[in-house]
Amino acid sequence: MSKAGLFISFEGPDGSGKSTQISYLKEFFEEKGLDCVFTREPGGTEIGEKLRDVILDTHNYEMCDMTEALLYAASRAQHVSQVIQPALDEGKIVVCDRYVDSSVAYQGYGRQLGGDVVSAINDHAIMGCLPDVTFLIEIDPKDGKKRIKSSERDRLESEKLWFHKRVYKGYLEMAEKYPERIIVIDGTGSREEMRDEILGHVSRILKERGIL
Amino acid sequence: MSKAGLFISFEGPDGSGKSTQISYLKEFFEEKGLDCVFTREPGGTEIGEKLRDVILDTHNYEMCDMTEALLYAASRAQHVSQVIQPALDEGKIVVCDRYVDSSVAYQGYGRQLGGDVVSAINDHAIMGCLPDVTFLIEIDPKDGKKRIKSSERDRLESEKLWFHKRVYKGYLEMAEKYPERIIVIDGTGSREEMRDEILGHVSRILKERGIL
Repeated sequence: MSKAGLFISFEGPDGSGKSTQISYLKEFFEEKGLDCVFTREPGGTEIGEKLRDVILDTHNYEMCDMTEALLYAASRAQHVSQVIQPALDEGKIVVCDRYVDSSVAYQGYGRQLGGDVVSAINDHAIMGCLPDVTFLIEIDPKDGKKRIKSSERDRLESEKLWFHKRVYKGYLEMAEKYPERIIVIDGTGSREEMRDEILGHVSRILKERGIL
Repeated sequence: MSKAGLFISFEGPDGSGKSTQISYLKEFFEEKGLDCVFTREPGGTEIGEKLRDVILDTHNYEMCDMTEALLYAASRAQHVSQVIQPALDEGKIVVCDRYVDSSVAYQGYGRQLGGDVVSAINDHAIMGCLPDVTFLIEIDPKDGKKRIKSSERDRLESEKLWFHKRVYKGYLEMAEKYPERIIVIDGTGSREEMRDEILGHVSRILKERGIL
């Protein structure tokens, strides 16, 4: 395996099937015997998990939008410094469930802080550590919400539909802005169709990198 | 009292005697019957106190510098939005023990993230809510550290002397940069001398504002 690591992130609205696709990718990498780190945001570190609890606590309804955006960025700075960058430096493949695009979509567009504002804050947090490839699973917000059981909805997931529509718009605008990084996957397909498409892209990238 | 609020912050190294001066100011405002809010950073809100615990937990030694800076900013955004700005909007006097200058001095200079970087992050957090006047109690870092009992030292306070020297330098540079806002108080004087100097400035400002 090449010493240059590979950083893959997964993005998409809640209920888009990210977790299922990430587990397929995990199986694929395990079969190939590749050295991988699977992680998630918010969280991914001890400090990040503490912050995740504060952020997602359904009792914290009085949290202001800018606080939320800065907390995600703080958690991300820790995640990059303690987990992602060290793994990449060791030549590992890092797969992250949500990363900076989630903040831009949810806080920048969803909460209307502005995509540029949230990007600027996160530029400090990630210190240049952007994914090599991002799989954005595109699914209409109405369909995404239907797939989540109400009992599992945390604070963010229980927001109104118009919030999720703005998030969706944010994701699509980022996909247009960064076509060299963001690969849009049609989330209306079956899980197997999505899996085959994603694994096709990953295989190609691994070959290009000389990893496979 | 004028409907326009007044925002006063206190800054200075640990052990500079900020708390004593703030309690003198509290007595003064109470004697005058003025409507005041006394608050502190990090903390000042329920969410902020949770974050304060995470930041100051002496077990969190692995916290990276940028995470710390973003957490202070997150706590501050909440503090401004939930406590400081609403009180100012009601025409109250707000006195805050540490504010944005602490972040620039401690994270920007002390941890060497850069004063400009920390200022830029905090510009998002404070949304234009800067103090009308800041009392910076200037004291040589060596003298400041002597005044703190070792049992009371938290993670920040147990940093090495060179860290505190950089913080000191940061404070002095800010005082030069913002002479219209930051009033430097000689911290080597007696507590009564400092009190008289600070109350002199405050009385003048209250008269200028038509509050007294």
